[in-house]
Amino acid sequence: MLMKNNLIKDLKNTLTPYNVLSELEERYAYAQDAANSRSIKNLPDVVVFVENTEQVQDVVKLARKYRTPVICRGAGTNVVGACRAEHGGIILNFSKMNKILDLSRENMTATVQPGVIVGNLQKEADKLGLFYPPDPSNLAVSTIGGSIAQASGGAKTFKYGSTKDYVIDLKVVTASGEILRTGASTIKNATGYNLNSLFVGSEGTLGIVVEATLKLIPKPEAKRVLMAYFDTVQDSVDAVDAIIEQRIFPATLDFMDKNAIQTVEKFYPANLLCEKEAALVIEVDGFESAIEYQQKAIVSILEHCNASAIQYSTNDDEYEKIWTARRSSMGACAKLKPNVTTDDVIVPRKNLAELVLGIRAICEKYNLDVCMVGHVGDGSVHPQIPIDYRDEDEYKRFKKAKSEIYELTASLGGILSGEHGIGADKRAHIHMVINETALNYMRQIKKTFDPDNILNPYKIF
Amino acid sequence: MLMKNNLIKDLKNTLTPYNVLSELEERYAYAQDAANSRSIKNLPDVVVFVENTEQVQDVVKLARKYRTPVICRGAGTNVVGACRAEHGGIILNFSKMNKILDLSRENMTATVQPGVIVGNLQKEADKLGLFYPPDPSNLAVSTIGGSIAQASGGAKTFKYGSTKDYVIDLKVVTASGEILRTGASTIKNATGYNLNSLFVGSEGTLGIVVEATLKLIPKPEAKRVLMAYFDTVQDSVDAVDAIIEQRIFPATLDFMDKNAIQTVEKFYPANLLCEKEAALVIEVDGFESAIEYQQKAIVSILEHCNASAIQYSTNDDEYEKIWTARRSSMGACAKLKPNVTTDDVIVPRKNLAELVLGIRAICEKYNLDVCMVGHVGDGSVHPQIPIDYRDEDEYKRFKKAKSEIYELTASLGGILSGEHGIGADKRAHIHMVINETALNYMRQIKKTFDPDNILNPYKIF
Repeated sequence: MLMKNNLIKDLKNTLTPYNVLSELEERYAYAQDAANSRSIKNLPDVVVFVENTEQVQDVVKLARKYRTPVICRGAGTNVVGACRAEHGGIILNFSKMNKILDLSRENMTATVQPGVIVGNLQKEADKLGLFYPPDPSNLAVSTIGGSIAQASGGAKTFKYGSTKDYVIDLKVVTASGEILRTGASTIKNATGYNLNSLFVGSEGTLGIVVEATLKLIPKPEAKRVLMAYFDTVQDSVDAVDAIIEQRIFPATLDFMDKNAIQTVEKFYPANLLCEKEAALVIEVDGFESAIEYQQKAIVSILEHCNASAIQYSTNDDEYEKIWTARRSSMGACAKLKPNVTTDDVIVPRKNLAELVLGIRAICEKYNLDVCMVGHVGDGSVHPQIPIDYRDEDEYKRFKKAKSEIYELTASLGGILSGEHGIGADKRAHIHMVINETALNYMRQIKKTFDPDNILNPYKIF
Repeated sequence: MLMKNNLIKDLKNTLTPYNVLSELEERYAYAQDAANSRSIKNLPDVVVFVENTEQVQDVVKLARKYRTPVICRGAGTNVVGACRAEHGGIILNFSKMNKILDLSRENMTATVQPGVIVGNLQKEADKLGLFYPPDPSNLAVSTIGGSIAQASGGAKTFKYGSTKDYVIDLKVVTASGEILRTGASTIKNATGYNLNSLFVGSEGTLGIVVEATLKLIPKPEAKRVLMAYFDTVQDSVDAVDAIIEQRIFPATLDFMDKNAIQTVEKFYPANLLCEKEAALVIEVDGFESAIEYQQKAIVSILEHCNASAIQYSTNDDEYEKIWTARRSSMGACAKLKPNVTTDDVIVPRKNLAELVLGIRAICEKYNLDVCMVGHVGDGSVHPQIPIDYRDEDEYKRFKKAKSEIYELTASLGGILSGEHGIGADKRAHIHMVINETALNYMRQIKKTFDPDNILNPYKIF
């Protein structure tokens, strides 16, 4: 306790006092992230707002002195408990390091602080005719730092890749308080080991990102979104396959199952067809001249694949309406029970229908609701399960269902996360998909970068 | 000597004798790779052809027993001395592990052995309407294993990324002879640290890749290539900038300087315009309907940017003719002197003209010829310098020029390789672009994976 008081005193002396929060109610405000854990006992000892790199270095040095964990936090939107302070320690809040430091049209790069909101970077890039494709559903609030930590993907990963494909350089404060630069300002790099990608998805366990340089691409001239309904899940997956077979490369090939459609329609009416088993949300982009062509080709394929009621956007409003429906799934689901959880399992695409139907069967067996959305192109599903944490029995059934979902995923050649990360919530299951040899190397890499285990300890594995 | 004889005896007992080459003339055949080193003293003790994973494990176990280096070799086309046996040891030849094990249209993935030739994979993928974009110039001979080791890029990196963006899983034999799987069969992965990307570009120093699973994408329906000439290098770079400003995203934005144009025309006449300072080779792809649009837009931009004599392909023959001219640069250059060398420097794109003109000035100062080709979109240049290694004075001037080229690159915010790697030839210079903190972490990672330093030792750093 004395130690903790000294730490807080040192932090207040080092930073400015108003950037150091240590009252109980303040700490409670940071006990949770969007993983929405059942427990609220994960209190940090202190929350600090950093304003520059030197302050991050100072905090890390104090963390080492007091051997206390440092947990980075952007907007706290991760859904795996990645920024939960399970062992107390310091929450490093990056919301004040939110500047776009450089946006170069000529180099097609952006250099940003970790607290920059993904959607804001997209808007600023857009003004220069450039595009930053990774778009997690929560891009209006989630930060670049968080995207890097969790290896975020989004609806456009199928065509454009995920965060790792856009990080070309990171400025990192290491566990010893030094500055490490992981890459370079160039688009390509074959100079030494790829430390960029090692940091993407490392969930703050290897070092603290204080600046990121990202690759941008030319913004497609036009885009259009189509929505199509199917009577079986397999039909929807087969339709995706048929589209790709025709060498069409949509930006998005997203999916909603019957429960997701019905739940969205219930709370955010959008004229969705509630009796259908599945819907696809297909976005095409490119030159205006190719949009019409793609739409016609896709509609013709969809009709051959038993799709009914194909809608498409003809203007920005209609475009937003379809996307709002797709993105409202989690919010709608949250209205069914006091709590809502999401997940992120992924398999080779040909096993996707089996995964979706299997997850539904598991949830039925345990008497749980589940709304499924996902990215069919990637083979990725987000099962959203509403739950009442106060209901002990339901919670037990929920934990069992989760375990079975992971077992099913592994048996279908899949892994436990495609774009959310592992955090605290899934680490107990990681051995199901990563063998001991690989885990051992990961642990040794962790030890190399963080010998005292102060950087977001015990996450991932 | 006795040790070496015992090693060879053990290898012959373990593998079949005809897969073990130990005669002096056989070892000489493997003293060089395409880096075309001045020295031919880098003799391996023995060359072995492996036919399966178990044999690779057996060889690694013997290498550990005898504490002797193991150097992997695909087609030996790398140009940085990455598979040179500087300290003797075993060359592990992968040319017999050259099978495509699985090519799945539904999953859009290929699983291949490391000896598969890049061009062959592209052809097989093509038959399914799929596309493996990384295309090093030597793709007709270079292997997937080599591409992974050296983080190969190619002409289409600007739009499609490089090898690291396509590797989703590797089966690796570790220094201890164990099997490590670095990823998964899924397109996206946020499950633990990204070991895939750590291995791409690690030049065989961390483990031995025995199988790779690669992401494929839908093959674009059509493509066309344009060639345009300019009176100044800056004009050509400005033209690229103007194209991107119009939100056109060409697959290729390649470059040839005056010397490259003249040298190609001298040895492989293709009606190139020899009085021009620079040429761009621009490939657009996509739907047939968008090709004509892109071509018209680009031609109009090029004309505004002072381009003259714009040619474009209207059929496959013309397409191949333009590409053959661009790809012949190295071969043509090789006819100027007994030896030819190439290099691979890269800067943020806005500094590219300065780099190209600076390299030319450095070569003039040291009385060296230089032909430059490159990938303008990426900011990447390959200065090809013909040389007579028997001329001591020329060799000294060459070494000085190289050093100055690297200094110039570093001063322009660039790095020493975008797509060739560092190998033996550039390791003495890596500190110019990677600071000691990063190099130290790289050395520790090396130690983690290869504590006895038997895997391609002393390469990169």
